[in-house]
Amino acid sequence: MLAKSAHGKWVMPSRRRFEASMKSLTEHLWFETPHRRDYLNITDKIEELVRRSGVQEGLCLVNAMHITASIYINDAEDGLLRDYDDWLEKLAPHEPTSQYRHNRTGEDNADAHLKRQIMGREVVMAITNGKLDLGPWEQIFYGEFDGRRRKRVLVKIIGE
Amino acid sequence: MLAKSAHGKWVMPSRRRFEASMKSLTEHLWFETPHRRDYLNITDKIEELVRRSGVQEGLCLVNAMHITASIYINDAEDGLLRDYDDWLEKLAPHEPTSQYRHNRTGEDNADAHLKRQIMGREVVMAITNGKLDLGPWEQIFYGEFDGRRRKRVLVKIIGE
Amino acid sequence: MLAKSAHGKWVMPSRRRFEASMKSLTEHLWFETPHRRDYLNITDKIEELVRRSGVQEGLCLVNAMHITASIYINDAEDGLLRDYDDWLEKLAPHEPTSQYRHNRTGEDNADAHLKRQIMGREVVMAITNGKLDLGPWEQIFYGEFDGRRRKRVLVKIIGE
Repeated sequence: MLAKSAHGKWVMPSRRRFEASMKSLTEHLWFETPHRRDYLNITDKIEELVRRSGVQEGLCLVNAMHITASIYINDAEDGLLRDYDDWLEKLAPHEPTSQYRHNRTGEDNADAHLKRQIMGREVVMAITNGKLDLGPWEQIFYGEFDGRRRKRVLVKIIGE
Repeated sequence: MLAKSAHGKWVMPSRRRFEASMKSLTEHLWFETPHRRDYLNITDKIEELVRRSGVQEGLCLVNAMHITASIYINDAEDGLLRDYDDWLEKLAPHEPTSQYRHNRTGEDNADAHLKRQIMGREVVMAITNGKLDLGPWEQIFYGEFDGRRRKRVLVKIIGE
Repeated sequence: MLAKSAHGKWVMPSRRRFEASMKSLTEHLWFETPHRRDYLNITDKIEELVRRSGVQEGLCLVNAMHITASIYINDAEDGLLRDYDDWLEKLAPHEPTSQYRHNRTGEDNADAHLKRQIMGREVVMAITNGKLDLGPWEQIFYGEFDGRRRKRVLVKIIGE
């Protein structure tokens, strides 16, 4: 829609221009896991948000908003999830908690900050033809390393 | 180009508006490496796609679509590639394959899922003035940890 | 603003269309740390650039342009920074430098290339309502693993 500006020239109102050129969706998801460490498959939730966004071509960012949790993409296979857990515990053991300076602040979660660096904070995925452009085995996981309390994940979708 | 809408107002047709406001390019690259683990410099391929996209200012996502491979950025120096390989094998050894629960499914690639978490799934790069905005030594690598079969990499470019 | 094209149709000049549909900001930050390894909180600098960009909804990429440094997001707690440093030194020790093939090139920084893979090259953050959409404890860090020389970090902001 065009409107006549104060200077007598035809312009497209900026609101419409905004809506036409880029779509975005912002959503915060909440998780509270029953154990200190848990691995939740959140692929369906993210696919639903991509549909809702209406974006056909764009990018989808999903990131943990807490610094002792991860978003990562890998296999939804129970044995592998337990392998990850054993491996992370070997690379950055929870006990003894006194081995970490961070825990002198009264926390006991220094290991969770380290584990999250290995697994990563975020994933960025392509949206193609209105859908997440994932490989056949790619599943999106929320990795929790200091659970049993409510934590947030951010989903940001931009594109057209 | 403007056209008269059914309501008698001048509008810019949506197709043109789309093309004008955001460009995107989607490409899937295929790789089949000769060894279980290989490190391929794919910088030239990605630079060519950026040129082809016509994007001047934007972002370029490159991600492995398989969950036992990585896209990462580091040095194209043969000694370092072998250092990475030794180091990853130390942090997440292939043998004995029986140490991983995932391998009870009939796979022998649990270690590859772990190695890929260290090296990462994806990189996101800036495009500035029509080119990848990389530092002088930044090279884009496909890291394969369970090779000898065809696997895909996704390149998604968005911007203007 | 509209202009009459050579073909006598009303078109919006491309420059204006560009400005209206997508904003972008590109900035290179320089750092020179006093020690081989250092961890600098750069959150304020990035927030300032987001303000300056004028982007309300979009993405902010921050990446190291050197391959022995990281951008990562975690806690601004001194004990934790020292835990990271000890942990990285355990996973990829600097000494003996002769253990790495890369160092036969005359470098002594092979360990820095490995450490940076654990901590990551980049972060991608959402911009919502004109601000970085960060969790309460999320702080952006420049992690240096081979310091005492000038190095660059790239900030790329795109959106509307």
